[in-house]
Amino acid sequence: MAERAHALSTVDGYSGYGAEQGEKKLRAAVAATYYADLGIEETDIFVSDGAKCDISRLQVLFGSNAKIAVQDPSYPAYVDSSVIMGQTGLYQEDVQKYGNIEYMRCSPENGFFPDLSSVPRTDIIFFCSPNNPTGAAASREQLTQLVKFAKDNGSIIVYDSAYAMYISDDSPKSIFEIPGAKEVAIETASFSKYAGFTGVRLGWTVVPKELLFSDGHPVAKDFNRIVCTCFNGASNISQAGGLGCLSPEGLKAMSDVVGFYKENTKIIVDTFTSLGFNVYGAKNAPYVWVHFPGRNSWDVFAEILEKAHLVTTPGSGFGPGGEGFVRVSAFGHRENIIEAARRLEQLYK
Amino acid sequence: MAERAHALSTVDGYSGYGAEQGEKKLRAAVAATYYADLGIEETDIFVSDGAKCDISRLQVLFGSNAKIAVQDPSYPAYVDSSVIMGQTGLYQEDVQKYGNIEYMRCSPENGFFPDLSSVPRTDIIFFCSPNNPTGAAASREQLTQLVKFAKDNGSIIVYDSAYAMYISDDSPKSIFEIPGAKEVAIETASFSKYAGFTGVRLGWTVVPKELLFSDGHPVAKDFNRIVCTCFNGASNISQAGGLGCLSPEGLKAMSDVVGFYKENTKIIVDTFTSLGFNVYGAKNAPYVWVHFPGRNSWDVFAEILEKAHLVTTPGSGFGPGGEGFVRVSAFGHRENIIEAARRLEQLYK
Repeated sequence: MAERAHALSTVDGYSGYGAEQGEKKLRAAVAATYYADLGIEETDIFVSDGAKCDISRLQVLFGSNAKIAVQDPSYPAYVDSSVIMGQTGLYQEDVQKYGNIEYMRCSPENGFFPDLSSVPRTDIIFFCSPNNPTGAAASREQLTQLVKFAKDNGSIIVYDSAYAMYISDDSPKSIFEIPGAKEVAIETASFSKYAGFTGVRLGWTVVPKELLFSDGHPVAKDFNRIVCTCFNGASNISQAGGLGCLSPEGLKAMSDVVGFYKENTKIIVDTFTSLGFNVYGAKNAPYVWVHFPGRNSWDVFAEILEKAHLVTTPGSGFGPGGEGFVRVSAFGHRENIIEAARRLEQLYK
Repeated sequence: MAERAHALSTVDGYSGYGAEQGEKKLRAAVAATYYADLGIEETDIFVSDGAKCDISRLQVLFGSNAKIAVQDPSYPAYVDSSVIMGQTGLYQEDVQKYGNIEYMRCSPENGFFPDLSSVPRTDIIFFCSPNNPTGAAASREQLTQLVKFAKDNGSIIVYDSAYAMYISDDSPKSIFEIPGAKEVAIETASFSKYAGFTGVRLGWTVVPKELLFSDGHPVAKDFNRIVCTCFNGASNISQAGGLGCLSPEGLKAMSDVVGFYKENTKIIVDTFTSLGFNVYGAKNAPYVWVHFPGRNSWDVFAEILEKAHLVTTPGSGFGPGGEGFVRVSAFGHRENIIEAARRLEQLYK
């Protein structure tokens, strides 16, 4: 990125407006690195300034009359962007849900995968795996069910794979590993959690050419229009960073950093487990989902903050299904994680 | 930017998610550089990844029921984002206009400023000055009329000042030079045309705290929610570039580059004028708006492309009011501008 930034000051290295969909080399590298055997091509890749931004651009694509389903709990951007787009009804204080959104409960009882037989049809299904905040990764069988469910209902899945590199078992890293997914799914992904690019702003979204609206019109064609009208592409310097990430050296560095955070995760899991807590997630994700049965998430958050001076995330912030949990993040320096473990032991022993 | 990119690889220089509204130092520098005496403060500034992106985020703020007015001709992003948001009626082939958009004709006959007494009320008025494509900058008197018109009608002006640094006469460089504008206007701006940042992606939008919806709720509060939900801030590396632009050295460099393009503009104007064409704009803008009375813009474009191998922009692409014109851009190397002038002389002498 430093080289690219510097090159911008030279006649040969300067570049102005790039392709809104991303630089050809980066689109090709993403397709080759993550989707080589899955039938996803360079032209299916839209480079973005991060998954959050593309989630909202997708909502603009779907429009204010779309009805969405979300995992409960889930990353708040799905629900919040739905509210902003005017897709929802009023907030219902008693159940802590917005009207006209389908909340698919994901809890320890159902292995963090919803009972699809009880889920009504929606236009759009946001599905994040490995999930933020629960850390649960859906299995091949579960994703096969999900793809069939979407196909049967004529729904589009927006599959958020921002944490896919954290998968350690044989769960799919892309929805496109499931046969038929290209006809029902969009996948959004990010360099944020692999390369520390949260501030650099770089991600991508896959809209397969096989995905069609019910009238046969390709979804990618409309998304392309939105990308060209509402966005001008990710920063050229950030895109140079993406190419660096996908070089052999970059892939090794990303794998190392993911491995480092997974060691942090293990320290956090061991700490809570030894204190008698039930913990979830963690195996395939940088998040540990800790159960405080019968307690209010915000009370637990306040207790840990005030007594141990540690910041966690209250589970109820991710939806009503997160009540009674806190999310503990493994993104941190090793010495801070060890110190946090020490304080948690002091607090809960 | 190279320094900031490199610093990201160090423990001290690394930064992750920043403030969605932009880094405090950059917001303060924008406020101090461009709005020092205008009562606009750091907290009114939202740093963006470019004006085009913020125009769409503003459209998301306004929602699908808003009705907009645009200058005709104007930068296509206003109309296109309106169509995408579902604000418009069908495209009317005969008049080349979308339904439910107010096209405010700006032509040589009215000095490129609409007759506001004949413009019906709309919720939003997009107004670009200096205008892309006509190059016309509105005078203080005209902008005073516009602000009064918006105030009388309860409309919000989205003032696009992306070319403000090209102003050579005493036309206002910001809508906020007009008394009362803070209660009716949002201003969107960009580093693209001052520092060659088209690929770097950096701009800003001013939403004054004085701007309220009719129920008294501050517009900035809702825009902030959209920025936080639909955007995660501009790249930290690009923001370092913005700070560089606003340093004494950067301001001098931007002023030099703007001056250079203005010299290009003069060459283009002299060329067309000597060939007997009526040209407009140019004085306060990097664009020359050349009249080919009675001819079709696309035919003129094709003629210049095929016979002189030069690319211009057909005026009708900016709205029906652009028919019969082409936009000629001054963004280019000097030797290319001189060569273009030579070929145009050959073609039209």
